[in-house]
Amino acid sequence: MSHSQHLITLTTDFGHKDGYVATLKGVILSIASDVRMIDISHNIAPHDIMEAAFVLKRAAPFFPSGTIHLVVVDPEVGDNRRPIGLKFKDQIFVGPDNGLLSLVLSREAVSQIVQLTNKTFWRDRVSSRPFNARDVLAPAAAHLSNGVALSNMGEQTQELHPMHWALPIADQQGVQGWIVHIDRFGNCITNIHRSIIEPIQGDRVFKCYVGNTVLNETGCDYHEAEAGDPVLMFNSDDLLEVAINRGSAATLLDISKGAPVNIVFGEEKTLSFQNSFFDSDQPTQK
Amino acid sequence: MSHSQHLITLTTDFGHKDGYVATLKGVILSIASDVRMIDISHNIAPHDIMEAAFVLKRAAPFFPSGTIHLVVVDPEVGDNRRPIGLKFKDQIFVGPDNGLLSLVLSREAVSQIVQLTNKTFWRDRVSSRPFNARDVLAPAAAHLSNGVALSNMGEQTQELHPMHWALPIADQQGVQGWIVHIDRFGNCITNIHRSIIEPIQGDRVFKCYVGNTVLNETGCDYHEAEAGDPVLMFNSDDLLEVAINRGSAATLLDISKGAPVNIVFGEEKTLSFQNSFFDSDQPTQK
Amino acid sequence: MSHSQHLITLTTDFGHKDGYVATLKGVILSIASDVRMIDISHNIAPHDIMEAAFVLKRAAPFFPSGTIHLVVVDPEVGDNRRPIGLKFKDQIFVGPDNGLLSLVLSREAVSQIVQLTNKTFWRDRVSSRPFNARDVLAPAAAHLSNGVALSNMGEQTQELHPMHWALPIADQQGVQGWIVHIDRFGNCITNIHRSIIEPIQGDRVFKCYVGNTVLNETGCDYHEAEAGDPVLMFNSDDLLEVAINRGSAATLLDISKGAPVNIVFGEEKTLSFQNSFFDSDQPTQK
Repeated sequence: MSHSQHLITLTTDFGHKDGYVATLKGVILSIASDVRMIDISHNIAPHDIMEAAFVLKRAAPFFPSGTIHLVVVDPEVGDNRRPIGLKFKDQIFVGPDNGLLSLVLSREAVSQIVQLTNKTFWRDRVSSRPFNARDVLAPAAAHLSNGVALSNMGEQTQELHPMHWALPIADQQGVQGWIVHIDRFGNCITNIHRSIIEPIQGDRVFKCYVGNTVLNETGCDYHEAEAGDPVLMFNSDDLLEVAINRGSAATLLDISKGAPVNIVFGEEKTLSFQNSFFDSDQPTQK
Repeated sequence: MSHSQHLITLTTDFGHKDGYVATLKGVILSIASDVRMIDISHNIAPHDIMEAAFVLKRAAPFFPSGTIHLVVVDPEVGDNRRPIGLKFKDQIFVGPDNGLLSLVLSREAVSQIVQLTNKTFWRDRVSSRPFNARDVLAPAAAHLSNGVALSNMGEQTQELHPMHWALPIADQQGVQGWIVHIDRFGNCITNIHRSIIEPIQGDRVFKCYVGNTVLNETGCDYHEAEAGDPVLMFNSDDLLEVAINRGSAATLLDISKGAPVNIVFGEEKTLSFQNSFFDSDQPTQK
Repeated sequence: MSHSQHLITLTTDFGHKDGYVATLKGVILSIASDVRMIDISHNIAPHDIMEAAFVLKRAAPFFPSGTIHLVVVDPEVGDNRRPIGLKFKDQIFVGPDNGLLSLVLSREAVSQIVQLTNKTFWRDRVSSRPFNARDVLAPAAAHLSNGVALSNMGEQTQELHPMHWALPIADQQGVQGWIVHIDRFGNCITNIHRSIIEPIQGDRVFKCYVGNTVLNETGCDYHEAEAGDPVLMFNSDDLLEVAINRGSAATLLDISKGAPVNIVFGEEKTLSFQNSFFDSDQPTQK
């Protein structure tokens, strides 16, 4: 067992108020007294599988090889969603098989999927109603960190409940995507990756229609805009992001999660902007 | 000293914003550099002893033997509430003697109560006004985790400030209880334990009057109801709970903490519901 | 390397929702797998350097010698603010050189300042846009905890971006200060330290004009006032604080951050209050 298997992360929609997360941690420490636990987020909007997937997908790759990610966001709590564990690249993910893990992982890089059916590794029932996170999933993560092989924890399966991100639609004229996340600062993150735009864009400029405004490609960073001005840029994950320097783009530009984002390519950058086809656009900002 | 004495949990109403919790942790780590600390909750409503007691009572049993629980919710801060430490079953609790610990623990299972009067284990004063959590309670928890015997930390006492949960009232016709906690999801948890209802219920059905509605005993789980439908069930702590599948029961059924919950037993389950005495009830939901 | 260099604290305005903090922790653990991490606060108001400085300045001294404080609140994110590390007393601080650290530290006790220019200790770029907290600052903190000397991490400098707290103005008649922080309880903390008032005050009483009220010096503690009554006192950091027993002074007295606080000295305490010059003040409270 490598050292980093001593690390468990937790991602839930349990919040910080009710002690649910502490219960999971108590259960884990009762089984694996030396394991380290790191909170990824417990403020996922209740039942929001996609938000949990977005946050976990972004953070997980920064954790060491061998890390065990425990994920519990489950609108179907109590349902017959199978508790599963799986290996993805050099990490292990544990959670209900409700589609969340499909959103986080590329199916082809998943090397092993196990239904956590082996009751040896479940917690003894303390009430007549099971609480899968406490009684099955947290104990599984703890036993894995103790070095129990995933293959011992239940039956292997090939099935993973499928769920898919809506992908941006691209052609030579433009790209349509969506706002997939709004962060604490009100920055609006799209599902449009740099690798989608650049091959099509070539030397052309583009404009972006989003919320109540239209933005030019600026290529600049937050601070290079005047305070209060919107900025359109690729963020540190290379996703197109709409931000406002020292302000909330979500609030000021009236952008909500799921809002459409339309990229329209224009003239080549070497042409004078005066002659571009955008002249009549009368953008409301910038 | 057993290994698990290296574990301290923290439950406070200090919030996550002001750095008060970090100050306690810095003090603890300055005394016990290897101790592990787990947050149970710092989002207890300000001064809400009962909420803190409910959350801690539910989470504490899941922690290992030897765990030290540091609890600081104190409306009488600065008052002459005695800082105490006590042993309950195989764990230690440290906090002000303001009734909170009485709510968490069964008095008869408390094996030792000590007033933390031994200033050897206090923090050196850094200001003219003491901050008991920082200067007395956190250092006590840290020294306990270092293996100092509780009996060395002050004078033994038999007194524990008494505070009692309001208990449900039950007779052959029904049970009256209260909503004691509303969690992040809007699930409304009552103080009615399965063990109170079942001996009286026998084979009878029951109805539950709560908030703006009346609910039948369903026996089903969140997901078995249609989305938006209310569910009445015993939760994973065997307490009766009112929930709404993918919604907030508190909001939609107008239920607040402290609201009364009335259980009324009806006909035996084998009778047709059509003939039951509930026919004229015209429940507003379900 | 002393043991306590294994301890990193984190103070950011990243919130608990988006997983940004977890990304930093994953990066740190990938470099320094044994380091301990303690959150000071991630709920600093977005871009609020002064709030971050106030919270960190108050908590940092309670951490052990050798602690590494990682601080990321940066309105100019992406700007050419230099990432720096510095030694202050027996601790190390790492963050952008945007004035925040000047507010936390006394310049004369800073023994070494290093620009983190040595790319050996940066994270490999994972996107075209750098994220300094993830790619430079967190790795620096991790390498420092591994025992790398601060002097190896870049060029020494004497410059520290200066930023200063507004200091109270004092004369024989009184002291004018400001509310610098409002905590979770609504307690309003001023920038007026006990050491400013007492030498001038002598035996005189004083009154305090703040928000919509005027308060007498009470010298009492929260609990000694009736519930709902305002209290004026020196808090456990010896700063003058306006509080309301079991209530929010900020809300009830209409006090916001930055509000002026005027202390006016009156007669000597031995005189009867009846004869004092305050008789005609008609205070609205107390």
